[in-house]
Amino acid sequence: VTAATRSYNFGPGNPDPGVFPSRDLGAAAQRVLARVGAELAHYPEQHGLPELRALAQDRFERNHHVRPPLEHIVITNGATQGLQLCAMGLARPGDDVVLEEFEYSGTIRVFHQCGLNLVPAPLDDGGMRMDALADILERQAAIGRRPAFIYTTASYQNPTGTTQPVERRRRLLDLARRYELPIVEDDTYGDICFEPQLEPAIYSLANPGEALYIGSFSKILGPGVRLGFFIAPESITSRLLPWKLDGGTSMLSQLVAAEYFESALWEHVEEGRNAVKEKRNTLLDALESEFGGVPGMSWTRPDGGLFLWVKLPEDVNRVRLHDLATARGITYSTGQAFHALNQDVPYLRLAFGWIDKEDIPEGVRVLAECVRAAMPAGHAVGG
Amino acid sequence: VTAATRSYNFGPGNPDPGVFPSRDLGAAAQRVLARVGAELAHYPEQHGLPELRALAQDRFERNHHVRPPLEHIVITNGATQGLQLCAMGLARPGDDVVLEEFEYSGTIRVFHQCGLNLVPAPLDDGGMRMDALADILERQAAIGRRPAFIYTTASYQNPTGTTQPVERRRRLLDLARRYELPIVEDDTYGDICFEPQLEPAIYSLANPGEALYIGSFSKILGPGVRLGFFIAPESITSRLLPWKLDGGTSMLSQLVAAEYFESALWEHVEEGRNAVKEKRNTLLDALESEFGGVPGMSWTRPDGGLFLWVKLPEDVNRVRLHDLATARGITYSTGQAFHALNQDVPYLRLAFGWIDKEDIPEGVRVLAECVRAAMPAGHAVGG
Repeated sequence: VTAATRSYNFGPGNPDPGVFPSRDLGAAAQRVLARVGAELAHYPEQHGLPELRALAQDRFERNHHVRPPLEHIVITNGATQGLQLCAMGLARPGDDVVLEEFEYSGTIRVFHQCGLNLVPAPLDDGGMRMDALADILERQAAIGRRPAFIYTTASYQNPTGTTQPVERRRRLLDLARRYELPIVEDDTYGDICFEPQLEPAIYSLANPGEALYIGSFSKILGPGVRLGFFIAPESITSRLLPWKLDGGTSMLSQLVAAEYFESALWEHVEEGRNAVKEKRNTLLDALESEFGGVPGMSWTRPDGGLFLWVKLPEDVNRVRLHDLATARGITYSTGQAFHALNQDVPYLRLAFGWIDKEDIPEGVRVLAECVRAAMPAGHAVGG
Repeated sequence: VTAATRSYNFGPGNPDPGVFPSRDLGAAAQRVLARVGAELAHYPEQHGLPELRALAQDRFERNHHVRPPLEHIVITNGATQGLQLCAMGLARPGDDVVLEEFEYSGTIRVFHQCGLNLVPAPLDDGGMRMDALADILERQAAIGRRPAFIYTTASYQNPTGTTQPVERRRRLLDLARRYELPIVEDDTYGDICFEPQLEPAIYSLANPGEALYIGSFSKILGPGVRLGFFIAPESITSRLLPWKLDGGTSMLSQLVAAEYFESALWEHVEEGRNAVKEKRNTLLDALESEFGGVPGMSWTRPDGGLFLWVKLPEDVNRVRLHDLATARGITYSTGQAFHALNQDVPYLRLAFGWIDKEDIPEGVRVLAECVRAAMPAGHAVGG
């Protein structure tokens, strides 16, 4: 193996860097600081900047046809802080939380740090399986361990890219209602949709207090601005806010993002979607041509988001695959990083937001070579 | 009582709003976003932006003549987040923490939320009393309750404005060493010094690992940027960072602040100091002329910071005083808000950073009228 001369980065869950609006954001910063910069001499309001909360409100209404009250919207330091607040405000250390078996490693880390016990529910191409969830909730009830909440990324899940159809969302609500468990719906990727049909947010189908909705500005702008939000009625918010112990979310970030999005929100969201959708299409084409028909291999076909989940043949040597790929300049995330119980599973996650579109076919071709080389002798892999 | 036509806001612990550099900050934002704006498409580095950490390093060295290693400096979402990380990383719920009897209400809130048990040490004009601390530590050892850490704001303490002289800092270190307790030194107000002589930070007198230093950019720029930092060796940092569950501190805030401070740090610090020092002088003069010689009244004479602590005569009706003052447009903070055990003590805090200098004499005059009116008949109050 010679030293890699190129690199193919399927690692980071970032949006397309090419559409990042550096210039427009700089202009927005200058405008808003000239106008209301002295606001920064105050501590931020605990619920966040009203203008940014109103943008979150408009976004939710446009996507889900329900308008949450402004007072139910709280700005956070990225969606990640929303997870932390749920883990600390809705649960106590030692509590169980039900979540997708494959889950964003950052989510797992937050929940673990807060002492939560993860109870994984299997997924299929339609996201969390409701038959499995029903069994889990029944079993938990039988042993007297009531989960603190059910956590789900119903749309464009990380790492699998799967989306729950609306029937499944209604079933999830029914189950949560029966066992009187709150649902934490993480819609971090919700705006990066590639199809005109959006599934309605669970929050929009729920009665007040049944669900908390977590949103993000990270994926439609950039994670570096650290802006997310949650939507919940006062009965839930009052349990979360005491744990927001950071003195408030950067008002500089809030002012600049609100000023920029005031005029550019949907245009910028559309630009981001299109850029990432083209990459998804290129990736799906490349996977089909390199891996199509290989026994034991399959992958998801996400309708949105930034991730695609590849099942590897069971007999691939995954350590060797990772070493080979790294040596050839390929970065991806191993399945184990996303398993709720840290099991070494035959999967890998390919993120397609960050990598240059032009590099995708060659990256997948090199990855296919690595997979072949990591197979036991005699197992044929296409290509 | 007629409706107030003017208001006198001695409430907020903010720096002088008049020196807030809106225009320069806007220009810095535009420059830095044009140059490296696409950095925001990434998650922030966990330790923070190296350029901003280097500024914290330079600041510490200039103030305290010791240069901490860059890798010991971590950017936080304001100093407040540093408190949270200490409360979660150095202590467990139920642990004791020793701190000044009068303490910033925000600090008390963070420690309480994290389940800590506050053990107050009395102060005098030289800050936390070391004879009292020695007694407390002996008593705690005798009952087998080892505190998780000693928390102190050694310079320009909030709410009292007091500063520990260097001998007291050395004694504090000796005591902490004897009982093997870490010191958390909060130097949020450290740069707002009015005298050429700065007491050395406890951190600069300590051996590695004996003290953690918390600093802030809030008081030399504005709390709305939400930027602070802590300095500690890896052995301590590794206990704190797992609790930084917010996905990182706003890189937008970090980039803009670093770009602005790169050229303007000391000039801006000096401007802020001078503005606030004039207000302190005006406030001290006004207190002397309105309250000088009144039995039972006294106040601190801070060498820096934003606060002054007024002792009221014991027989002032404090509820009535607060009602009267509010009706006359005076805002101050009651002593009880800052008592570690929430006791109703005969003190009030006057913050002098935010109020217009021109309003201070009249504000104190009105306050004196209110104090007189809140005294039992027959008790003479000057003026």
